[in-house]
Amino acid sequence: MRLAHWNWGGRPHVGLLSRDGREVTPLGAAQPALGALPLIQALARGEPLPPPSGARLPTAAVTLGAPLPRPLRSVFCAGRNYRAHAEELATTVFRDSLPEKDTWPIVFTKLGECIAGPYDTVRLPGAQVTLQIDYESELAVVIGRGGRDIPRSRAIDHVFGYTVVNDVSARDVQVRHQQWDLGKSFDTFLPMGPCIVSADELDGRDTRVRGWLMARNAEPELRQDGRTKDMIFDIPTLIETCSRGITLYPGDVIATGTPSGVGMGFQPPKWLVAGDRFRIEIDGIGAIENLFDHVG
Amino acid sequence: MRLAHWNWGGRPHVGLLSRDGREVTPLGAAQPALGALPLIQALARGEPLPPPSGARLPTAAVTLGAPLPRPLRSVFCAGRNYRAHAEELATTVFRDSLPEKDTWPIVFTKLGECIAGPYDTVRLPGAQVTLQIDYESELAVVIGRGGRDIPRSRAIDHVFGYTVVNDVSARDVQVRHQQWDLGKSFDTFLPMGPCIVSADELDGRDTRVRGWLMARNAEPELRQDGRTKDMIFDIPTLIETCSRGITLYPGDVIATGTPSGVGMGFQPPKWLVAGDRFRIEIDGIGAIENLFDHVG
Repeated sequence: MRLAHWNWGGRPHVGLLSRDGREVTPLGAAQPALGALPLIQALARGEPLPPPSGARLPTAAVTLGAPLPRPLRSVFCAGRNYRAHAEELATTVFRDSLPEKDTWPIVFTKLGECIAGPYDTVRLPGAQVTLQIDYESELAVVIGRGGRDIPRSRAIDHVFGYTVVNDVSARDVQVRHQQWDLGKSFDTFLPMGPCIVSADELDGRDTRVRGWLMARNAEPELRQDGRTKDMIFDIPTLIETCSRGITLYPGDVIATGTPSGVGMGFQPPKWLVAGDRFRIEIDGIGAIENLFDHVG
Repeated sequence: MRLAHWNWGGRPHVGLLSRDGREVTPLGAAQPALGALPLIQALARGEPLPPPSGARLPTAAVTLGAPLPRPLRSVFCAGRNYRAHAEELATTVFRDSLPEKDTWPIVFTKLGECIAGPYDTVRLPGAQVTLQIDYESELAVVIGRGGRDIPRSRAIDHVFGYTVVNDVSARDVQVRHQQWDLGKSFDTFLPMGPCIVSADELDGRDTRVRGWLMARNAEPELRQDGRTKDMIFDIPTLIETCSRGITLYPGDVIATGTPSGVGMGFQPPKWLVAGDRFRIEIDGIGAIENLFDHVG
């Protein structure tokens, strides 16, 4: 199943996206403004999905939002989780934060309020705040069954599904505050979508993650092209790690890290500028594409 | 005003704590399980407090919970924000993370779900997870009026009030994952209380913060004794920092850092062990006291 969240007729809806992505069917969910969250929580309680509440519509007629527009809480994120990405940062200011002997993953969090829709504009903070905006194409895991101290061997049973996120990052702000939370959590810095694909339809442990820079008046440029099987810490390990002593809940999100090819890895670095778009596609899920601009 | 949250007769209540701390008066709030949050949100909308919904009770007859038991989201926290504390860590594994030239504060976050009541037991994760549990006595600021890009000069107008927190920390886990979120966010790792004192009754910019270790069968030992005026980055600066590009909301919490005297600062370090209690008192607010134990 593919859960999606959209606006139509001035109102929020949640429901199913067809496999080809062309149609949406609304479901009679109680709090559609919360997107797929109440549905995932209901499924975790053993309840069925609510029945359709309206006719199918062409996806082109609606505005897709993030499937989890207002998540439970901060999103867990793995840092430096692809070897080639870790290597490309080995000469940057982050050279000292490589995962040590691959023993423990880097885990940080992004405030849930920074989630944006799959085609929303990412708001660039002013130049007085940051000059180093970067993209990170990532597969995100959505937890279906909660728990604490979940062992790696059973972790996959706790996965509801997968979605696409761009872990937008202000590199200078990450460095400035040493801890990364602020530089990762500016409003709109976590575009997500276009849907959540349930784990019975996609094995996130091996799928392709690609990211394209689409600069104004230029051809799309493939910047990132990785496979999730190349993660240093695989999805079960990340779930085990995040749940050690910390209760995970249905609807929790774990972003799994980005393959190589981020702007910071170039010499000199290539930062995003106003007017750039960035498109991320994950095989088996779909694509998100966001304009970066100074707004509001 | 002193907002508190308690259980009595098997039900959650929210209301006012008397100045001497001896009596509580319940208010007719819609969602008492959320503690003071809906009240702070209502005040931010210009609404009055709801009227009393019952008789005064002696505080001793109720069980006080955290005033914000289920906050909006993660709690913002300042790291190394007292010079003497920064100095005591200068020979530890954290020696490289001193605030650089005092230009930018270290800011990290703790998951809101780790909040515990003022007298609740802090659950020690097993020895396979951490062996280095430490306390941090801190004044926490509760935001009353939201906003983004709040300038230092007007930041105090955004403060609703102040409370006491213990930013319990697993030092080995902080180091292990490089980013601190996990090692700071184990379930129950943020005791809070006993109330929120509104800013018209206390100026958090200069008050005394003390912390006592109360080991089993031992006299209380004063471990921390600082004044908030000795912060490296003052409260207005912390609010300005957290709100740069990030919208703050009524009910958001910013923990302001801990004075010197943490367990890690001793040579050799003195970690908390099962059976220890730690008591934190902030002049003008009150005290919290928590047992550390293996439970559940």
